[in-house]
Amino acid sequence: MARVFNFNAGPSAMPLPVLQQVQAEFLDFDHTGMSIVEISHRSAAYQKMQDDTVAVLRRLMQIPDDYHVIFMQGGGSMQFLMHGANFLKHRGGYLNTGIWSDKAMKAASYYGEVYEVASSKADHFSYIPKEDTFMVKPDTDYIYMTSNNTVHGTQWQTFPHVDVPLFCDMSSDFLSRPVVVTNFDFIYAGVQKNVGPAGVVVGIIKDSLLKHVREGLPDMLSYRTFADHDSTYNTPPVFCIYFVNRVAHWLEEQGGLTAIEARNAKKAALLYDCIDGSDGFYRGHAAKDSRSVMNVTFNLPTPELEAKFVAEATARDLIGIKGHRSLGGCRASIYNAVTEEACQALADFMNEFKKKQ
Amino acid sequence: MARVFNFNAGPSAMPLPVLQQVQAEFLDFDHTGMSIVEISHRSAAYQKMQDDTVAVLRRLMQIPDDYHVIFMQGGGSMQFLMHGANFLKHRGGYLNTGIWSDKAMKAASYYGEVYEVASSKADHFSYIPKEDTFMVKPDTDYIYMTSNNTVHGTQWQTFPHVDVPLFCDMSSDFLSRPVVVTNFDFIYAGVQKNVGPAGVVVGIIKDSLLKHVREGLPDMLSYRTFADHDSTYNTPPVFCIYFVNRVAHWLEEQGGLTAIEARNAKKAALLYDCIDGSDGFYRGHAAKDSRSVMNVTFNLPTPELEAKFVAEATARDLIGIKGHRSLGGCRASIYNAVTEEACQALADFMNEFKKKQ
Repeated sequence: MARVFNFNAGPSAMPLPVLQQVQAEFLDFDHTGMSIVEISHRSAAYQKMQDDTVAVLRRLMQIPDDYHVIFMQGGGSMQFLMHGANFLKHRGGYLNTGIWSDKAMKAASYYGEVYEVASSKADHFSYIPKEDTFMVKPDTDYIYMTSNNTVHGTQWQTFPHVDVPLFCDMSSDFLSRPVVVTNFDFIYAGVQKNVGPAGVVVGIIKDSLLKHVREGLPDMLSYRTFADHDSTYNTPPVFCIYFVNRVAHWLEEQGGLTAIEARNAKKAALLYDCIDGSDGFYRGHAAKDSRSVMNVTFNLPTPELEAKFVAEATARDLIGIKGHRSLGGCRASIYNAVTEEACQALADFMNEFKKKQ
Repeated sequence: MARVFNFNAGPSAMPLPVLQQVQAEFLDFDHTGMSIVEISHRSAAYQKMQDDTVAVLRRLMQIPDDYHVIFMQGGGSMQFLMHGANFLKHRGGYLNTGIWSDKAMKAASYYGEVYEVASSKADHFSYIPKEDTFMVKPDTDYIYMTSNNTVHGTQWQTFPHVDVPLFCDMSSDFLSRPVVVTNFDFIYAGVQKNVGPAGVVVGIIKDSLLKHVREGLPDMLSYRTFADHDSTYNTPPVFCIYFVNRVAHWLEEQGGLTAIEARNAKKAALLYDCIDGSDGFYRGHAAKDSRSVMNVTFNLPTPELEAKFVAEATARDLIGIKGHRSLGGCRASIYNAVTEEACQALADFMNEFKKKQ
């Protein structure tokens, strides 16, 4: 079996040792005589696995005891409306740094007033706004942000400090670097970038915030349902949670989030150095001080060259390099499981391609 | 590896050949050089697989062209509220035959008036109401039913004919027998009983019904979003859909739904014959004319004997026999993938256990 170099934006590359482990134990989960997809979510074997998943996540991220860790379905898109359904009472403020925060703001507007605390929309979301430009209105229930913007290739380098509850969509850089959980009242992440297969969202939610959940919501729209029932009010996506468990253990074996952050920085530097050293042949989309370590977005001199670049890359098993349809250009997504070898192969190809033109 | 006899109510037994296939191809999906959990949902490889899944489902169930087949997340519980959010405008009628229809009625009541068209609640949901007892009110938007009641072990033997759109939760007997799709405007099924891992709901929805979706819903709550975007408005649960694909192909190889129905009837007969021939030692919960072919529910003379029965069964690798916590007693769930051998082993054990008392 030949593995390609997978630069998909999500779903995306997973660690090979985890894939091999999942394959090896697929017919017999934890000596139950059943596959992980066959076990009951009310069984001791399931509960032990879910509890362990929460425990590893708590260790990796140093999540304090006054936060619940919950598992939900529906992807980030369901969170775009759920956070509003639960917490938008007066007005919700948005740090609008990309199409995902834009969608979240739109979905939440179903439940109340939304507004931009800051925005880089006028500049094609090419930078992360500075904290001193924030405009926070009175009676703001929360400020919502996206830590990493997959489409535009920007990322918050440090997190803002605000006086209202801060919500963060960490879908695309979850577990890629240490974060101070206590800076946030609510963190969520669809796991299909760094942590597992599409189909589960991890939520980290402060107990004091749960008290403010809107009363009378249908059960499945209320965060309290997931917190009060330990994520098993209904059948959770067992396989996805199990996969997250195995990836989280793999992360611990790699040295945790500080170690993976260093590795990710090294990988990103290979590509950004290539861009910066190309005499303008490759042009990064993101402002330098806002560059993402997860998604490297860039353009070539012409759309024709971009198409040729993507085609030749694909022919060399460098997969997923085409930019998001809303922005065009090129994008290399280099999440946790993308190896340094893969990034070096792409950088080599970029240098070579440039020389040939 | 020793496989146990898995009578779990869901998630539940999957066909061993499918588990082996999924395992074998887990590191390289369709010659992509990537695992199925690593491929992009915007890739040709994914689209081909999803299209094929829809095609096989259409063949198996003879789904006409004027129905969309869609994939959603959140399990049946999310459907309990979504059908109401989309279609409850005047009043919704419910055939209340178990705790799941009861929950659906409660969740939908968030969006409007709900009422019981018929109910067996007063008799512990032990039977399926007759069609001539239905009381349908004027201005009823739809009638909602559950084809098989996992907790109580009852099942609609034939489907009612009503003058308003009929919605059916087929989660627990989906693809276990032929159904006439045109009898319904909307069918949905969480797949984690007969068809795959927990994490995806298949929806079969008539195009004419889609025109009546409530306007202005948040995108992720609207069935139209899933129909208009071919289930890829956001990232779908790729692995679960892929698994459904493999199970659906396996079903075709078994001879389709008529063949699987015959096999399921034979399996159920092994257990019901054992109950009926036990001189009252085993007492079936369901009325005989309402018995489920999927979930066989029964009691022993005392709760103490039931506990002993479950413990001894477990010791012999007959797993998942304990009844639902809301009803007690015993339950054997014998979905498509549970073998005749497993049912025979349970029947043998039941006969032997009775003799020893």
